[in-house]
Amino acid sequence: MSILKNIRIVLVEPQHPGNIGQAARAMKTMGLERLFLVNPKNFPCQEAFYRAAHADDVVRKANVVASFQEAIADCSVVFGTSVRERILAQTLLFPRDAAEKIIRDFHQEEVAIVFGCEQSGLNNEDLERCQFHIKIPSVDEYSSLNLAAAVQVMAYEIRMASLSSLQQNRLSNQRSPLATTEDMEKFYQHLRETMIDIEFLDLRHPRKMIKRFRQIYNRAILDKEDLNLLRGMLTAVQRNVLKRQKGKDCL
Amino acid sequence: MSILKNIRIVLVEPQHPGNIGQAARAMKTMGLERLFLVNPKNFPCQEAFYRAAHADDVVRKANVVASFQEAIADCSVVFGTSVRERILAQTLLFPRDAAEKIIRDFHQEEVAIVFGCEQSGLNNEDLERCQFHIKIPSVDEYSSLNLAAAVQVMAYEIRMASLSSLQQNRLSNQRSPLATTEDMEKFYQHLRETMIDIEFLDLRHPRKMIKRFRQIYNRAILDKEDLNLLRGMLTAVQRNVLKRQKGKDCL
Repeated sequence: MSILKNIRIVLVEPQHPGNIGQAARAMKTMGLERLFLVNPKNFPCQEAFYRAAHADDVVRKANVVASFQEAIADCSVVFGTSVRERILAQTLLFPRDAAEKIIRDFHQEEVAIVFGCEQSGLNNEDLERCQFHIKIPSVDEYSSLNLAAAVQVMAYEIRMASLSSLQQNRLSNQRSPLATTEDMEKFYQHLRETMIDIEFLDLRHPRKMIKRFRQIYNRAILDKEDLNLLRGMLTAVQRNVLKRQKGKDCL
Repeated sequence: MSILKNIRIVLVEPQHPGNIGQAARAMKTMGLERLFLVNPKNFPCQEAFYRAAHADDVVRKANVVASFQEAIADCSVVFGTSVRERILAQTLLFPRDAAEKIIRDFHQEEVAIVFGCEQSGLNNEDLERCQFHIKIPSVDEYSSLNLAAAVQVMAYEIRMASLSSLQQNRLSNQRSPLATTEDMEKFYQHLRETMIDIEFLDLRHPRKMIKRFRQIYNRAILDKEDLNLLRGMLTAVQRNVLKRQKGKDCL
């Protein structure tokens, strides 16, 4: 159950077999076991098995392929790692965001996370084959992580995201379903009407007030029961104001 | 500015100089540069410098000491890492929580993060000298990270916490000060009174309704301006209800 079977780690042209072994160990400690090696130098090699320690089975089961394309042929989603900012900012994620995306959006897809070779990383052509890009937020002065260390960070974030997802599932079983965007828009409409009824909406800056309410309730992440309570209160306000209107009419 | 000068990494009796080098590299990529080595085997050694790559200065500057106590003598806070659950659950943190604690609570203290030797980790006596304990959440089936990989995970989390703290400082400069507990209690009192005024408070279950409101606004983390808006609306509701009361009185 703890093994994330839809996720593969792809190492493109790793030059040091020790890094292959350490990457395998990094993976296995975090519940990842599918390793693809594109055109590795000096492999198979004792050094790789030695450095894998008790993850030597991951090294033994590794798929050795001749090209990057072959390694990702059956994948729906490919994440490429890079320390350079040359890649498109729109597709650039921190490891944490990438891991959350993988666990949340792509848990039923074949996902590849790709690492380039030690000296130069992924080349532009390879990076263009990836839908998403990951940059580990190292310091500017010295940004070059060891290959296996980069795999460790990414595998760790995937493990954290999967633990957090398990926990959220447990929590969300206790909560009612979350409000949909449509529910929220109806709520804001109701809020707006009520504000007008009680003469609270600042007609010079109505948008600013509504915007602040949106910020508050966006942060609160409302479920359907929360929304029932809030809308129930708005309805009670309106009922009272309407009574007043009727009272006025009698005068 | 990106170097976190109050934090030291302590390796107790590291057995492989390669791990010392890789730990130094893991540290430097994340902005940590103070390394203490307690009774290291085979040190100094070319292998350590070679594996450090461009973090060889961190290895060169490392403080070599004879005992754990010496390494932490001038520290106010000591975090010990362990894969075992034998340590007190009360002081056990995930790397992420530990890193956030270090950045938030101990940014002006001398902090040590201590890693035991490759084979057996920290012994009980050493663990008892630490105020806090960190367990990297590896899978049960294979929980043993390489020493430098464990340093990488911890250094990465410290880097993430420091980036997030910088960002929060920027964001909080844009927001008004957060509401205090006293502000919040006054708000809930005001909310309660208003609910009574509009006959909305379910008198059979008043606590349950108020509890749900508390959950909503706790999640939203309100600042003083948010609270002004919410209380302004409550006041407008009350004004309208009072008008109605007056209207009724006239009948």
